[in-house]
Amino acid sequence: MPTLTKPSIYYPEYIVTNNDILNFIKKYHSNTSHMNQLEEMIYNTTIEKRHLFFPFDLVMNLGLFEERQALYEEVARKYSLLVAQKALDNSGLTKKDITMIITTSCTGFMMPSLTAHLINGLDLPENTIQLPIAQMGCVGGAYAINRAFEHCQLSPTNNVLIVALETSSLCFHREAGKLQDFISDSIFGDGAAGVVMRGDDVGEGLSVVKSKSIFLKNTESFIQYNITNNGFLFSLDKQVMYSVEMIRNQVNEFIQSELKHTDNIDFCISHTGGRRILDEVQRCLNLKPHILEKSRESLKIVGNTSSVSVIDVLSRHFGNVNHKDQGVLIAFGPGFTSEVMLGEWRV
Amino acid sequence: MPTLTKPSIYYPEYIVTNNDILNFIKKYHSNTSHMNQLEEMIYNTTIEKRHLFFPFDLVMNLGLFEERQALYEEVARKYSLLVAQKALDNSGLTKKDITMIITTSCTGFMMPSLTAHLINGLDLPENTIQLPIAQMGCVGGAYAINRAFEHCQLSPTNNVLIVALETSSLCFHREAGKLQDFISDSIFGDGAAGVVMRGDDVGEGLSVVKSKSIFLKNTESFIQYNITNNGFLFSLDKQVMYSVEMIRNQVNEFIQSELKHTDNIDFCISHTGGRRILDEVQRCLNLKPHILEKSRESLKIVGNTSSVSVIDVLSRHFGNVNHKDQGVLIAFGPGFTSEVMLGEWRV
Repeated sequence: MPTLTKPSIYYPEYIVTNNDILNFIKKYHSNTSHMNQLEEMIYNTTIEKRHLFFPFDLVMNLGLFEERQALYEEVARKYSLLVAQKALDNSGLTKKDITMIITTSCTGFMMPSLTAHLINGLDLPENTIQLPIAQMGCVGGAYAINRAFEHCQLSPTNNVLIVALETSSLCFHREAGKLQDFISDSIFGDGAAGVVMRGDDVGEGLSVVKSKSIFLKNTESFIQYNITNNGFLFSLDKQVMYSVEMIRNQVNEFIQSELKHTDNIDFCISHTGGRRILDEVQRCLNLKPHILEKSRESLKIVGNTSSVSVIDVLSRHFGNVNHKDQGVLIAFGPGFTSEVMLGEWRV
Repeated sequence: MPTLTKPSIYYPEYIVTNNDILNFIKKYHSNTSHMNQLEEMIYNTTIEKRHLFFPFDLVMNLGLFEERQALYEEVARKYSLLVAQKALDNSGLTKKDITMIITTSCTGFMMPSLTAHLINGLDLPENTIQLPIAQMGCVGGAYAINRAFEHCQLSPTNNVLIVALETSSLCFHREAGKLQDFISDSIFGDGAAGVVMRGDDVGEGLSVVKSKSIFLKNTESFIQYNITNNGFLFSLDKQVMYSVEMIRNQVNEFIQSELKHTDNIDFCISHTGGRRILDEVQRCLNLKPHILEKSRESLKIVGNTSSVSVIDVLSRHFGNVNHKDQGVLIAFGPGFTSEVMLGEWRV
């Protein structure tokens, strides 16, 4: 069975805290009517800090699209290469073994994409299939894993290098003053992750048993970008809080199709989303509290890192699982789309 | 073998001619030193007209990114649905048979992407796999066909709906005054195309035998976007003229692996690129002149429609081929990337 090997993760040096966000709001949006509500909401996120590729003050003074994109390209080129090389080293494979390169990055845009940059930077084979994904947002990490699984099912000699890189902070906008803008600024963080899926079943890792895409119809407004002259502006509908409930039956049926019952789940690698999304995952999948421990840990110390998040949580499971542990990897993103994967650990 | 069924094609009502472009340059860039050279180059493209989603004057007076993106979203939603529905009708399948939706569109950006819009608009199954591609540029149509082929190889009950939609004219910029900007403005046209790949071998169409991705290392500058406050600005390196020569051996070896010799090719469905690219395809693949007739016809009457182009040329072959005709579908795009497919007609 195709197997996810140990990921590599990178978080940049600049740190933003809840206090930084509150001070920003007090300074630039002192007339907001939501101040008390906001303070409570920000501390309720359970996020303690997030990492940014650039200082928070610089980010909050950025202007138009071009300026943001130039910064995106600078860090995207550098750190995608860093995590990709380490993920390849972790996998026990060499560059010549890679047959597909998937990048997922929704917070900036390049053409040619990062897949071209990585084929050049890592000197991957000239027949490597590229899969650059810019529009799957937060579900991108799980999405990439499910697409890699399909490619690996075609041949045990297929191997996929996945890189997720997000500069969420470059989508913060100083002038954006809606309650939901402040919430976005309070939960998203930057980071990069790399992981290799081997088509064979050699070595330690999470073997993929089955994958599924779930789309919720007529919910495009749940998670979307407004395209502005200042670049991408994240927009979240309150309704998104009910999304996990809305796909609950499909997810549970999928899990039960292989694992008998969700009571049997040994692990759940969940997109971190936010505290309430994780609470919903726990409730709707009927999980014991410790099952989401690593997802909550990731949210606490790096925030919601969009497509990077689920690979970060996967990484935290290495060394903390038992041979033959069975469970699920799940993420959520725009569409509304969920990508779900059932897996079994080989330790 | 997975089979491409009859495509649907849409070209919008506004038409731009070589004279329109020359008048524009004379009006706004009268001090350019390239005027004589330009006039000759524009008439040498062999393009007679192109279709645009909006009047040429409106396009050439567009400003910042947000304005362009709003126009993109308006036509992308409307016409992607139109060509998708017709392609589905042509395929003999119904909406419930579709297992994957691929969209390829490099001239605008939406999140959620057009894949979400089409699942909603066509009421496709809620487990449809989405593949929204924004960063493969002109190779996007052939790229989508090759990814669909992989998906269909997993099961004969897999069926893929592909939609390519390009608003290339929204990437024209009035202030852009380099020689290559004028060339871009002179070759690109708008349009939309839909095509279904059936996983089984029922009905008329082009059956896919084999697919291949070819990447040319260290050529990211050949075809790229500059990301400006006015949106995407196309940039083309003169070196791109040598790209077909650079991949010539790989393409010919791939063709010979199945078809013995390129002399045996009954058809070549080529990305239209420009006249010189088609000349290079003819020379490097050692093709008889009539083999590229449909590609040249497409270039002449709609220009280079980016990811739409290769599906347009595919469409022009329906009704003009014989049972068991064997040949190649090939396109080129940023990376530099070429996607190549070998196929056989079932008539």
